Amino acid sequence: MTDGKLALIPLGGATEIGKNMYVYRWNDQYLVVDCGLMFPNEEMLGVDILIPDVSFLLERKEQVQGIVLTHGHEDHIGALPYVLRQLPVPIYATRLTLGLIRAKLQEHSLWTATQWHLVEDGDRVKIGAFEVEFVHVCHSIPDTCSLVLRTPGGTVVHTGDFKFDQTPVDGRVSDMGALARAGDEGVLALVCDSTNVDKAGHVRSERVVGDALDAVFHEAKGRVLVACFASNINRVQQVVDVASRYGRKVAAAGRSMERNIEIARELGYLTVQDGVMIRLDQISEFPDVEIAVVTTGSQGEPLAALSRMAMEDHRHVKIQEGDTVVISATPIPGNEDTVFRVSNNLFRQGANVIHPPEMDVHVSGHGNQEELKLMLNLIRPLYVVPVHGEYRHLELWRRMASRMDYVAIKLENGDVLELEEEEAGITEHVAAGTVFVDGSGLSGVEDVVLRDRWHLAQDGIFILVLSVDKATGRLIAGPDVISRGSILTGEVEQVHDETKTRITEFIEGLPKDGTVDWAAVRTDLRRTLNKFLQQKTGRRPMILPIIMEV
Amino acid sequence: MTDGKLALIPLGGATEIGKNMYVYRWNDQYLVVDCGLMFPNEEMLGVDILIPDVSFLLERKEQVQGIVLTHGHEDHIGALPYVLRQLPVPIYATRLTLGLIRAKLQEHSLWTATQWHLVEDGDRVKIGAFEVEFVHVCHSIPDTCSLVLRTPGGTVVHTGDFKFDQTPVDGRVSDMGALARAGDEGVLALVCDSTNVDKAGHVRSERVVGDALDAVFHEAKGRVLVACFASNINRVQQVVDVASRYGRKVAAAGRSMERNIEIARELGYLTVQDGVMIRLDQISEFPDVEIAVVTTGSQGEPLAALSRMAMEDHRHVKIQEGDTVVISATPIPGNEDTVFRVSNNLFRQGANVIHPPEMDVHVSGHGNQEELKLMLNLIRPLYVVPVHGEYRHLELWRRMASRMDYVAIKLENGDVLELEEEEAGITEHVAAGTVFVDGSGLSGVEDVVLRDRWHLAQDGIFILVLSVDKATGRLIAGPDVISRGSILTGEVEQVHDETKTRITEFIEGLPKDGTVDWAAVRTDLRRTLNKFLQQKTGRRPMILPIIMEV
Repeated sequence: MTDGKLALIPLGGATEIGKNMYVYRWNDQYLVVDCGLMFPNEEMLGVDILIPDVSFLLERKEQVQGIVLTHGHEDHIGALPYVLRQLPVPIYATRLTLGLIRAKLQEHSLWTATQWHLVEDGDRVKIGAFEVEFVHVCHSIPDTCSLVLRTPGGTVVHTGDFKFDQTPVDGRVSDMGALARAGDEGVLALVCDSTNVDKAGHVRSERVVGDALDAVFHEAKGRVLVACFASNINRVQQVVDVASRYGRKVAAAGRSMERNIEIARELGYLTVQDGVMIRLDQISEFPDVEIAVVTTGSQGEPLAALSRMAMEDHRHVKIQEGDTVVISATPIPGNEDTVFRVSNNLFRQGANVIHPPEMDVHVSGHGNQEELKLMLNLIRPLYVVPVHGEYRHLELWRRMASRMDYVAIKLENGDVLELEEEEAGITEHVAAGTVFVDGSGLSGVEDVVLRDRWHLAQDGIFILVLSVDKATGRLIAGPDVISRGSILTGEVEQVHDETKTRITEFIEGLPKDGTVDWAAVRTDLRRTLNKFLQQKTGRRPMILPIIMEV
Repeated sequence: MTDGKLALIPLGGATEIGKNMYVYRWNDQYLVVDCGLMFPNEEMLGVDILIPDVSFLLERKEQVQGIVLTHGHEDHIGALPYVLRQLPVPIYATRLTLGLIRAKLQEHSLWTATQWHLVEDGDRVKIGAFEVEFVHVCHSIPDTCSLVLRTPGGTVVHTGDFKFDQTPVDGRVSDMGALARAGDEGVLALVCDSTNVDKAGHVRSERVVGDALDAVFHEAKGRVLVACFASNINRVQQVVDVASRYGRKVAAAGRSMERNIEIARELGYLTVQDGVMIRLDQISEFPDVEIAVVTTGSQGEPLAALSRMAMEDHRHVKIQEGDTVVISATPIPGNEDTVFRVSNNLFRQGANVIHPPEMDVHVSGHGNQEELKLMLNLIRPLYVVPVHGEYRHLELWRRMASRMDYVAIKLENGDVLELEEEEAGITEHVAAGTVFVDGSGLSGVEDVVLRDRWHLAQDGIFILVLSVDKATGRLIAGPDVISRGSILTGEVEQVHDETKTRITEFIEGLPKDGTVDWAAVRTDLRRTLNKFLQQKTGRRPMILPIIMEV
């Protein structure tokens, strides 16, 4: 590693996994941008969350100057409770982002020990050798920033998540002036969002969603329930606005929705007229046409409020004929199934359910191709570094940049990208894994544990226990058989009995002079049982032969 | 159940699960339409396939006249090997459908014992009291039929899967004349596909796909690989046509692709000029620009040819810079994840990957709203019975029908819908479950087994074994601890040791006079361990305390 060169080292988010965490290095100083988590896919059995492995940072604790957060989404702030515990460095964020972080750290009893700095967009903050300018950009949560990172080794613009909505709900357009000024000064690298690089044109304005919601409320003859991300405060604002317009009260369902609304109101990001918000347990006190509910569960998450309503398992909301449910979000790839399941169940109970492509009740928070190009033309960097996407996104960005005569550099997590005017290149690779968190605390779940769970999940487990006399090798108890998830009720008796008979015969056939190698017998038994069960049942459960030498 | 009334009894497919199987009853005679399977979702751990429970039919074996198959897709013919073994009745299908069935039944050594009848569209076949007219319709596999079922109790039109492509690849448009004639005669019920009832307008013609493929081949500087469903013979025909036009040889990858191409060529559904098809192991003998490959794996199925290529694990195809891969299918909801993973890996190896919304390389095989309305207007039935969709589809169909002044009846699997001119209604409910098939043969996986697998998958298993002296209650071997998928490497030693110490103390504290109730002890141990592990690890593995009384 060469000191004296500005470097970018993504620990998560270069291509997905563990999620967003970008480290910038100047001389011996390190600045971290974002600290996010990721939710597991269905193959990561029993895993609760994924976070980036920060061992690289822990090895240089003293040199880490702080963590800057671009916005308040989980994939950008969610790992803070896990990382700050090991790396208690100052954090920097705008008002709403900090409010959401505060709630999260308070839950983990970490807030009082945290050194936090409230910044505003437009601020230029010195953090060690880095000067960080916070530039307001539009996204699906208010108070999102792009960062202009100025160092003696040059300037980098780190976009974070963004889009260029020209008519945003809160009226705060992306600060193109500040971005253009940075571009005029000269920028080494644009480290840029890639999420929607495969989509042509512009993302339609949030205003479109407001119009669609208005149409829904206009038609609705009963209650209206709108599911969206709890962090999408502007969407909640739109629901509140349209509900007020139609004389409806608004109640919040779901813990994170309640909490975020409270934080957003307290900090001035959500404007609600007096008397509009009511508690969820009050909705039955009003006629249906005077009720709107904003709820969590837009991704079909099984424990979220909307799923509970769909399963007739919600304490305060029982879905009824005449209800209109708006799913104001697009399913994240892989969630389509669960969202549709929730939708079917809502329909079954008499609700009318409205999904995005049917009506424009959702737009993305990430800019499409034309917005990415606009960013590129504002910044005019020497190098483009696409991040925050899957591999194909980075490659599509590279091609798009190349057609605009820019050079794009694709990174993997852990790559050290050194940046100079003359050249830029990956000079080494540092540790950058993913920690699978399940159960309590920080212990990471390893591959071997996941492999075991996967094996158990496929065909269950088949356990054989027997006690033998150490001295003579005689069977003195068992064999007993215990199976879980492997043998069906109809076949269990026969399979268990036949196993017992075979194993008894086998053990009785062994020498009785105390010379038996029981470890070898165990291996034999596993092999024999594996073959036998495969033949009998077509399955290959995990087989555990347990021999107790008494 | 009233004899003398025509009845429809869906055993699968009314709303999904187990997949398509519709039973029609007239007096004491039963006719089965379709016999499909379904693939499990990720919650059905270790399950290979789902099929409808046919116990209702098995109880009236003698009265079942036969099974009519509308087309050759797995969700319409896939359960035949399982059902025919128990219910050996005659089957009726068109040429390609029967060809695919033959291959399937031969694999299961059932073909020679099967009474099959080859029909052609336009045929009217007497099957018991039913007269079945086979009417050609367009779908994503050739030789698909709607059925006009004429009985003394009235006529039903059973659409199966269909669309109205006005310029189909094989030139064979849906036989609107035959449908209109049936409509003129008077139809009791239209039992109709619902898949795309949530999509406005018409499905674009397959011709669009041909144009898109032409554009891709025109641009390609290296090999072109097209992934599609192996059953989509017309799509394969399009690939063959465009490849020939650009002077490319075509090779097939994937067992089902090879088999279906063979069957389709043999039966005249796929026309390939001499010398165009080559074996996959021959592709290296030609320059890249003279090669096209049709391959399975368009849904990202982990074992399919395309996934193997993406994982650099395919014997004959190594993806290289310059390859173009076309995914000529839309992911089935829930598969987006896996398709994108395959795509990322292909990009990583230098391929350019083209997905549907980006280019028109796929259209659906099911008609959109306007096509469903067209069908309704051709048939003008007394009742509409939407099937083959999820619940929300049936409800959307009902609303659409209602706006056209038709009455739609929504069914669940097992409902007995009796149909007369004067009235139609559900009169009773018969057994109609789903059989989860895994491993060998027919044994159904039950909920209890799946629940065990799910528990094992979440937090693994924790086994405690010990031997005690029956007479005195003294511990004579163990306790030993075996854990799988539950305790992480870093904590395993401590957790196992502490467990052993605690359990030893507990057992030693029990009376030594032979009065111990070991079943109760086992329950105690499970409870104690559960609490202890939850505290120590935050997880709740399946706990199995095994006490051997010696």
